[in-house]
Amino acid sequence: MQVKEIGEQGLLKILQRFCPPDIIGDDGAVLTTAAEKSLVVTTDVLIDKVHFSEITTSPEDVGWRAAAANLSDLAAMGATPLGITVGLGLPGETSVDWVEKLYQGMTQCLQQYNTPIVGGDIVRSPIISVAITAFGQVAPRLTIRRNQADLEDAIVITGYHGASRGGLELLLNPDLITNLSEDQKLILIKAHQRPKPRLDILPILWEIVDSHSLTNICGMDSSDGLADAILQVCHSSQVGAKIQATQIPLHPGMKPWLTPEQALEYALYGGEDFELLLCLPKPAASELVQKLGNGAAIIGTITNTSGDRDQVLLHDSSKETPDQVLNLSRGFQHFTN
Amino acid sequence: MQVKEIGEQGLLKILQRFCPPDIIGDDGAVLTTAAEKSLVVTTDVLIDKVHFSEITTSPEDVGWRAAAANLSDLAAMGATPLGITVGLGLPGETSVDWVEKLYQGMTQCLQQYNTPIVGGDIVRSPIISVAITAFGQVAPRLTIRRNQADLEDAIVITGYHGASRGGLELLLNPDLITNLSEDQKLILIKAHQRPKPRLDILPILWEIVDSHSLTNICGMDSSDGLADAILQVCHSSQVGAKIQATQIPLHPGMKPWLTPEQALEYALYGGEDFELLLCLPKPAASELVQKLGNGAAIIGTITNTSGDRDQVLLHDSSKETPDQVLNLSRGFQHFTN
Repeated sequence: MQVKEIGEQGLLKILQRFCPPDIIGDDGAVLTTAAEKSLVVTTDVLIDKVHFSEITTSPEDVGWRAAAANLSDLAAMGATPLGITVGLGLPGETSVDWVEKLYQGMTQCLQQYNTPIVGGDIVRSPIISVAITAFGQVAPRLTIRRNQADLEDAIVITGYHGASRGGLELLLNPDLITNLSEDQKLILIKAHQRPKPRLDILPILWEIVDSHSLTNICGMDSSDGLADAILQVCHSSQVGAKIQATQIPLHPGMKPWLTPEQALEYALYGGEDFELLLCLPKPAASELVQKLGNGAAIIGTITNTSGDRDQVLLHDSSKETPDQVLNLSRGFQHFTN
Repeated sequence: MQVKEIGEQGLLKILQRFCPPDIIGDDGAVLTTAAEKSLVVTTDVLIDKVHFSEITTSPEDVGWRAAAANLSDLAAMGATPLGITVGLGLPGETSVDWVEKLYQGMTQCLQQYNTPIVGGDIVRSPIISVAITAFGQVAPRLTIRRNQADLEDAIVITGYHGASRGGLELLLNPDLITNLSEDQKLILIKAHQRPKPRLDILPILWEIVDSHSLTNICGMDSSDGLADAILQVCHSSQVGAKIQATQIPLHPGMKPWLTPEQALEYALYGGEDFELLLCLPKPAASELVQKLGNGAAIIGTITNTSGDRDQVLLHDSSKETPDQVLNLSRGFQHFTN
């Protein structure tokens, strides 16, 4: 059955099953927020054939990843989610089944974090587009910001990087990678298809903030790549950093089939890992890494470089090569390539 | 200059001029909300060639109307705006000038209501899409809902209906309408290109709610047409209504060139007038209409019809014809036509 056969109202009725019933039926959704918390808002747009392919990505995975990306942006601000809105552009020929599965994928992710879909819009469009806005709340003193890194802060990552990029490679070239168990393959593929926003970290972080009497928290998520996150934080905070390449944990599933150089490249530039990068005083950082385990690590230190203020150096103690200046030349801009 | 020549980052830098500087640079925007108020969220998606035409509508007007539609949804809930986010899908060939003018139109509208653009996303897309999510806040007891109409309530509209549709007709067929002054033409065209969300009504309404000790407010906006708004409110509230056709004020600019039947059709089915439809006890309704003036009127009464519970009858006291049952047959669904 195609969307144009049941019309906007017919599709809305089907999709309302995915929303809390008390929230539907007015021009807007009404939500209760906690007093003395700030509202955090973030938005993302996904376009068919640009950000996903209707052909190669299942609608459930598109939905999961879209929801996860927005929840990760909330986690990156230290905020707990209140809800999301979904704006869909759909060709009339889109199958109703595809749209339902998209919503199933979204709600599978959202339910793990008690986050409702509280509104949306469905319109006719020549291509599929999915615009999600997520909102959450955070106590002002616990807001995580990019511009708060201090000299000597330890740079923490909350888990492995590169696993999502590894999973994508396995999906693109399944026959090329032979020396990897099926279990390990599935773990990497799941890291790509079902990434988890690290909202679970926040309560642990809040405890450490209190016990170490921290007055600010610096960080962001690493959805655009670990290198990008380090550079963004340093640029916003007007500081430099020294990253220890050998301290970046490489996922066990990457070692059998990637050279150390390739694995490091995946970790730095792969993106879509949805971990957090945090800059904290060393004792707090150590405690956080110990409590998180599983790929969490201190990977470097905030410095004041003598040259450019926000220069980031990548040091590899396993080699005799000089420190590299980290940059985004391996990254991309959406319009120019 | 085209978007692809400066890339996403270049475009972001230009567009950040339209946002408050303290809100930019993190994964999400942080907003302060008032204690004891609820958060109201609403979202709209516009697609080039479906909801506007890049060729026939100026980018400033697209921006103004997109912002106005979302602020009108907030007004329809009784909420004052906190901010909006804008998700843009853009072909690389889009001119940077077009995007800047879109933002100029949005901010021209938003500034009249002290509403900042607090975030967004820009992505590559084969067609132009604009997804806006608006946030506002409302005291819970002042929330306007569709399902609160009571028997004997007076049905109030806050201004003229049909003017936007009239303006569209003048733009489509400028040479056909000769017996209308240039001033009158401009007023109708402006009603179409620069509709005003009725946030100005809220403080007046709140005063009346207090002085009449009202415990709930029923209503919505009439952006999808006056007939649609009446039917939606009656359906949500499970009541009927009797509308007096002769009580629906017709804009002075419509009389010289439209028959009374055409003008009534424009008023009921034209849409995009962004007025509010409110159901209030008669004394409160009369006071509101008197305070608003300028096209505001009581156009009917909430009834309990003997047949279908939510039947809406249109009575024309100037004719001998029997009452019509109001329906949306002149409306449309986005996917089926």
